[in-house]
Amino acid sequence: MIYLDNSATTKPYKEVVEAYATVASTYFGNPSSLHTLGLQAEKLIGESRTRIAQILNIKSSEIIFTSGGTEGNNIAIKGTAYSKKSRGKHLITTTIEHPSVFEAFSQLETEGFDVTYIPVDQQGQIKVRDLEKAIRPDTTLVSMIHVNNETGSISPIEETGELLKKFPHVLFHVDHVQGVSKVPLDLKKAGVDLCTFSAHKFHGMKGNGLLYVREGVKIAPLFHGGEQEHRVRAGTENVAGIVAMAKALRLAVEKDTSHLDELRAYLTEQLTSLEGIQLNSPAQNAAPHIVNFSVPGTKPEVLVQSLTKSEIYVSTKSACSSKLSEPSRVLLAMGLGEKVASSGVRVSFSNETTKEEINQLMIQLKRIVPQLLEVVHS
Amino acid sequence: MIYLDNSATTKPYKEVVEAYATVASTYFGNPSSLHTLGLQAEKLIGESRTRIAQILNIKSSEIIFTSGGTEGNNIAIKGTAYSKKSRGKHLITTTIEHPSVFEAFSQLETEGFDVTYIPVDQQGQIKVRDLEKAIRPDTTLVSMIHVNNETGSISPIEETGELLKKFPHVLFHVDHVQGVSKVPLDLKKAGVDLCTFSAHKFHGMKGNGLLYVREGVKIAPLFHGGEQEHRVRAGTENVAGIVAMAKALRLAVEKDTSHLDELRAYLTEQLTSLEGIQLNSPAQNAAPHIVNFSVPGTKPEVLVQSLTKSEIYVSTKSACSSKLSEPSRVLLAMGLGEKVASSGVRVSFSNETTKEEINQLMIQLKRIVPQLLEVVHS
Ligand SMILES: Cc1ncc(COP(=O)(O)O)c(C=O)c1O
Ligand SMILES: Cc1ncc(COP(=O)(O)O)c(C=O)c1O
Repeated sequence: MIYLDNSATTKPYKEVVEAYATVASTYFGNPSSLHTLGLQAEKLIGESRTRIAQILNIKSSEIIFTSGGTEGNNIAIKGTAYSKKSRGKHLITTTIEHPSVFEAFSQLETEGFDVTYIPVDQQGQIKVRDLEKAIRPDTTLVSMIHVNNETGSISPIEETGELLKKFPHVLFHVDHVQGVSKVPLDLKKAGVDLCTFSAHKFHGMKGNGLLYVREGVKIAPLFHGGEQEHRVRAGTENVAGIVAMAKALRLAVEKDTSHLDELRAYLTEQLTSLEGIQLNSPAQNAAPHIVNFSVPGTKPEVLVQSLTKSEIYVSTKSACSSKLSEPSRVLLAMGLGEKVASSGVRVSFSNETTKEEINQLMIQLKRIVPQLLEVVHS
Repeated sequence: MIYLDNSATTKPYKEVVEAYATVASTYFGNPSSLHTLGLQAEKLIGESRTRIAQILNIKSSEIIFTSGGTEGNNIAIKGTAYSKKSRGKHLITTTIEHPSVFEAFSQLETEGFDVTYIPVDQQGQIKVRDLEKAIRPDTTLVSMIHVNNETGSISPIEETGELLKKFPHVLFHVDHVQGVSKVPLDLKKAGVDLCTFSAHKFHGMKGNGLLYVREGVKIAPLFHGGEQEHRVRAGTENVAGIVAMAKALRLAVEKDTSHLDELRAYLTEQLTSLEGIQLNSPAQNAAPHIVNFSVPGTKPEVLVQSLTKSEIYVSTKSACSSKLSEPSRVLLAMGLGEKVASSGVRVSFSNETTKEEINQLMIQLKRIVPQLLEVVHS
């Protein structure tokens, strides 16, 4: 098996699964219980919080544990929109956000919020000037993806954060789900107020994530109930998942990304020499683990299926919407046209990916792509 | 260790942890991915859904996987309130709900919804007559706990369901988190439209639950994003947790409850003979796994701490609010008075609990309770 779909999800590290199983079996108390077993569970969560805070260079009180990236994005966006709505109902985002951001904003539009979508160029870049022009007195939030999950393009977070310092009434949310451990981001320096993470994208467990909420920022909860997570996120904590996430994060950030850089350069070069292929990932300002390309005119599902037969696993667009055979919203937003946007294929690496695996992929592509093109041209 | 806090959370079955670890390590694909690893993950979810549906005697399309009971209650209640708000803004519940229901309603009140709280008697029972009188043309939802998490009192779900057949504009939500595998409930026969479950209460994993949504019932999502769970609950599915939950449910419902019945009768009898103790759990219409009592005038935390020293783990009120040293909202609602409500202690069994463990508990109570009372009387 050659797994090249790490942007959809990653294989959890062995030590992470082991830590999960140990905690789930041994420290199974409810962290809210007052007895030893409860206190042990609470302590484990506290230690995980401290460790994660150290790695992310934030305060442990600024971490809200969630069930994943989708929840994190939804709380951050709706939580800000609702809590600030007496101040204003204007929100800003970009045209290349993940569905969990895009659909959250669509929902808010149906509730009477006004959303400005900043366009991107063919490299997936917004102009921070455009964003500045869009800011109004009633703007309460800017939400921006750091690393795009389809193309790997990197948004100008630092520059935007710098700009927003001039607009203290505007909160800044970053979807860092694809960025963490691959593209550095100093939350404090960049002036980020809210930031979403998802454990299963960095070799942790599915169903776990965290939201950074800068001290002093108030957001409305989506779940009401118990006292957990400063009342921003009620519900019995997923203790084992949290411990596993802290471990996964530590292991993931320890890896340096030069291996990914090499893989990306190598694959890009190989793809460029193959006829009929168009690269969609930008050459600059791009994350090291994602390479997106199209075979214009062909159905990407066919390519994915053919590769699957050789046990090579890649994907079409965002996993969450991969079952819809519509063109990629992100590639369309980049102005790449219907034909390219309807045939995007994403290859995404992890640190375990090898050059030999890329060679295997290329062997298959060299076989399959000409066949696909033959069908198109006939 | 004598673990008597199974209403707060249960120890996951060994086979369940194993199943979780295997799925997490081996079938780690994103269920939305189109390749083999994705399809395998999707298949595992589908099979779990089918198995759970069989056990609960519902359709597999009626299951929404969630991150737990708190999320399930919040989606059911807010999801109904929001989706039906053009029809009416009146909601009905009881005074003895779990915080995740109670606080969801409190939130809706701040948003302009009108909530009627049906009172209970000293046995924790509502009168279905009262509920009938509360129904108005603009009522859209009745939400009721099946088994109360503090006292074990069983609410009249079947009778309420029967009544609500006369009011087809009113949806019926049941919080079955404490009931499942302990007190039978046929969702279809009882006319339940929405029903919440949480895996960690039946020896599954924390961070997993499910919501039954009867075919044809439309609720507004809390998370927007991907296409998962009929778009009612976006987010990458917790595949391993779902498989583990299906397994836990099967194992939990296989156990017959006569052992719990015996333990309950035995402990109740023993407690009755101990001076200074007042039983709060009702003698009839009560679940077999929960016994709540007070030592009026004493602080329950002190009793819990003393027992903890002998490695016997019990709890005060609902785990989610156990860190607040306020009287129990549920015991107050039952009209048991401030003194009793401020000193409630909950003992909750699992099928692994033994009579010998109850004997150990009684030995300690016979030692500690007189000491506590001495302090009170001095
Ligand atoms: C950029 C981005 N944001 C958010 C998410 C959602 O995270 P999760 O799968 O944990 O819900 C994903 C992945 O699906 C993503 O790639
Ligand atoms: C009756 C009841 N409902 C809901 C919940 C919430 O479930 P969870 O802990 O999965 O959020 C609990 C337990 O905490 C409960 O006992």
